[in-house]
Amino acid sequence: MDTDICGPSIPKMMGAENETIHISNSGWSPVWVMDNLGVMSIQFMLPNKDDAIIWRGPKKNGLIKQFLKDVDWGELDLLLVDTPPGTSDEHLSVNSYLKESGIDGAIIVTTPNEVSLLDVRKEIDFCQKAGIKILGLVDNMAGFVCPKCTKESQVFEATSGGGKALSEEIGITYLGAVPLDPRIGMAGDYGESYFDSFPDSPACKAIKKVVTGVASQIALDTESLFPED
Amino acid sequence: MDTDICGPSIPKMMGAENETIHISNSGWSPVWVMDNLGVMSIQFMLPNKDDAIIWRGPKKNGLIKQFLKDVDWGELDLLLVDTPPGTSDEHLSVNSYLKESGIDGAIIVTTPNEVSLLDVRKEIDFCQKAGIKILGLVDNMAGFVCPKCTKESQVFEATSGGGKALSEEIGITYLGAVPLDPRIGMAGDYGESYFDSFPDSPACKAIKKVVTGVASQIALDTESLFPED
Repeated sequence: MDTDICGPSIPKMMGAENETIHISNSGWSPVWVMDNLGVMSIQFMLPNKDDAIIWRGPKKNGLIKQFLKDVDWGELDLLLVDTPPGTSDEHLSVNSYLKESGIDGAIIVTTPNEVSLLDVRKEIDFCQKAGIKILGLVDNMAGFVCPKCTKESQVFEATSGGGKALSEEIGITYLGAVPLDPRIGMAGDYGESYFDSFPDSPACKAIKKVVTGVASQIALDTESLFPED
Repeated sequence: MDTDICGPSIPKMMGAENETIHISNSGWSPVWVMDNLGVMSIQFMLPNKDDAIIWRGPKKNGLIKQFLKDVDWGELDLLLVDTPPGTSDEHLSVNSYLKESGIDGAIIVTTPNEVSLLDVRKEIDFCQKAGIKILGLVDNMAGFVCPKCTKESQVFEATSGGGKALSEEIGITYLGAVPLDPRIGMAGDYGESYFDSFPDSPACKAIKKVVTGVASQIALDTESLFPED
């Protein structure tokens, strides 16, 4: 569920940007990009894919409520909510509308530099004040392996120890560091699976470790997640 | 003027994170980080710098109005408004509150990959619908020079031609490409001036070219901007 109403990127990254939403008696159908992966995003509803969604908070909140109430999600193992940055309407609404069903927790993603961590500390403070458990923190874009010389360097320098030091300081789970691999961005642009294309890459392994780390906390069966491993 | 209410980064990047706002008879005083550069941000008002600002749209709009009405900006050559991503409350409010004084225009910043350009096309559509002139578009994080082998590679691949191709397609000014230099992020983390420290770096030259490109469109004297060049 893509709650980035003004900047919805999930459909493109899933190779589904030309899909539209079907409406039946049972509600809006998510777009099934795989047998076991349904996506809902405002991007599917735009007459023109470059249209701006010029909406203030209340309209965004209304759509998020519809995504939760009017979409025929079927039986879900997991509802993953992608939020925009911030601690505002989208975050408050998701938390409030799911109050009764409960939220397993939040995954916090940062880059290792201190300016990003400043924002992320605010997200953590939000989760703590809103009573949302933090499943863990991920350092993204942590290290870049030069394709010319294969040596690693830092693109976003962890001047204060990165997400790892912050996790230790606050006492939350550190889910690991995902290196910056330009092929991830390219896979997103082409709507293809980075995991299928580069299963042995360091970034793929790091992301799988993040997923396993999250799954272990919410009692998800990790063997069914990666049956081929 | 930092309108990223939930993720205010400007004070830290300006080396002013421990400053607070002074209130006098003439209004709130901006924090003067240089003789000719005043900053206003909610970050200066937080009791604890890691506090979340858990505000829905109307409260954010109220603060933006106060930044414009209650701050004693003095005589300004230029009011530069930093907005969060999106086309929502902050963008609508700034445009609406400044309707009478007029806005010179918007600077659009992207990374060269297509997933970013998808968001940026929506920002451009917003500007066009809101009647805001587009002063130009910048490709940020365009190319990374490996510090180990000094060869350049792409971190965010321009799979569809990047911001340059988009600028040509839409007919807006292309302000240039700023390479990804890790020292920019470090300068932000330390609150130091990248321009003073690395005046001859390719990224510094590229950013100055962006500034000159913008200044030429709004009749700003560029010689006074870079007197030492």
